[in-house]
Amino acid sequence: MPDFSKGSAFIDAEYVPISEAKISLLDWGFLHSDATYDVVHVRGGKFFRLDDHLDRFFSGMKALRMSIPYTREELSGILSDCVSKSGLQDAYVEMITTRGLPEPGSRDPRTCRNRFFAFAVPFVWITPPGKGLDLIVSQRQRIPPESVNPTVKNYHWLDLVMGQFEAYDQGGETAVVVNAKGNIAEGPGFNIFAVKNRVLTTPGEGVLEGITRKTAIDIANELGYEVIQGELTPEAARLADELFATSTAGGIMAITRIDCQTVGTGSLGPITQELQDRYWALHSDPHYAREIHY
Amino acid sequence: MPDFSKGSAFIDAEYVPISEAKISLLDWGFLHSDATYDVVHVRGGKFFRLDDHLDRFFSGMKALRMSIPYTREELSGILSDCVSKSGLQDAYVEMITTRGLPEPGSRDPRTCRNRFFAFAVPFVWITPPGKGLDLIVSQRQRIPPESVNPTVKNYHWLDLVMGQFEAYDQGGETAVVVNAKGNIAEGPGFNIFAVKNRVLTTPGEGVLEGITRKTAIDIANELGYEVIQGELTPEAARLADELFATSTAGGIMAITRIDCQTVGTGSLGPITQELQDRYWALHSDPHYAREIHY
Repeated sequence: MPDFSKGSAFIDAEYVPISEAKISLLDWGFLHSDATYDVVHVRGGKFFRLDDHLDRFFSGMKALRMSIPYTREELSGILSDCVSKSGLQDAYVEMITTRGLPEPGSRDPRTCRNRFFAFAVPFVWITPPGKGLDLIVSQRQRIPPESVNPTVKNYHWLDLVMGQFEAYDQGGETAVVVNAKGNIAEGPGFNIFAVKNRVLTTPGEGVLEGITRKTAIDIANELGYEVIQGELTPEAARLADELFATSTAGGIMAITRIDCQTVGTGSLGPITQELQDRYWALHSDPHYAREIHY
Repeated sequence: MPDFSKGSAFIDAEYVPISEAKISLLDWGFLHSDATYDVVHVRGGKFFRLDDHLDRFFSGMKALRMSIPYTREELSGILSDCVSKSGLQDAYVEMITTRGLPEPGSRDPRTCRNRFFAFAVPFVWITPPGKGLDLIVSQRQRIPPESVNPTVKNYHWLDLVMGQFEAYDQGGETAVVVNAKGNIAEGPGFNIFAVKNRVLTTPGEGVLEGITRKTAIDIANELGYEVIQGELTPEAARLADELFATSTAGGIMAITRIDCQTVGTGSLGPITQELQDRYWALHSDPHYAREIHY
């Protein structure tokens, strides 16, 4: 029996252990980063906001002129099977469509048959619960929307990875990169929020419209906080009462240091805590959670 | 015996037929397009300017803080073996270093062991000799140097691929994308030159410093033509006497239509022809060509 315990993947209409999950070197998904994807998380055996992730995934494929031979229901079934085969109760589940390979002798993307991949792997926190992130504002610019549409989830991450190295050099743990105006954009896999005088600000444009970002905005509105989606200057972030990151990889996470200085009191702030509690509570709301049958 | 005739690859220190050349779905080279590469071509059983490609490849790895366990000479040997195993006399040979996979549970690129891949596949022309390219100037912006260093050869190509789709929509065959000023940058895998009154202009910044571009500049200088590396407006390109593309994938290739209008006389121009002839002649110059032992 193959061992799926470290994760499982769906490739070429078959389920394989994650260690065997491979893609052709010649697939444009690799050679041209010509792909779109989405990642949904599973906590306690339930998908969280699967429908929103599927919406974004299908709209990303449309924008890149890609298609897959699965209906939305069939796709949900494949993702669910990846998790149940692995037995993982807490997991990331990634769905990917790549351009595929062009016909021999061609360089025309219209000759490619798009390919679909999915996998489930154990959940990894960007930062473990209770530990605040130590953030650096990198001078590196996020790839602008005029080049690559950031609302189509994509693998163009070299700016973010190089920002991360910059953070390590400066003694930080992770980075946010900036937009062309020098204001904060996003980090590797997370959006950012600043809280000042009970008003929340999060970068409004040129960033991935994260599902966790959306959830945080919805919760904040529900709790009566004003949320501004607009420019967030590094200065404003440094002077914030609270800062937090949002990501499928960990939910709502406090940022307790920025550019080697303490944020607010230096520990998990009360509004961040409130949003975090509500965020995890939503994981048992049947409106957002979908049970997996193992 | 495995069949290497359609191409061969070097993966995990073994040679495999190209159809078996695969990379883990979890490698950051795929999931974050966190990789650098180079492509050298082989014509008539000889590498062309292999040393220049190796220089660029090693300098790209350094910029991305990657390394491989092979010396320059060992790497040349691997590339040569990929070609000789395939038996191909005309080939592309690609060398790739990816970030690799982080340690289980980590998202820290410093925990990754970088991975090296190489492959040889049959030579494919961007446009066959004698046929001029039909080019569209896309409004899509090339990813700027402030985000991703274009002199480090990388797989961030979604801007170029979407530009290509734009070209098809407008009845063209390929596209160039522009820089933030709206001036021409580069196309998918090629640089561009305009000739006006015997002066050559090629975009100077924010583009890959192509080896074929460099060769074309060297040849032009040697032949006594002035070459300007600076801004090339779409207007100037449309009014050029001659336009040509340079790429490892085909050398120096005439562009005979731009934005659905004829360039100059609409056929291969005399200066393009002169450069092209000299370019292919250099392929038997021992200073540039290195023989492969099959």
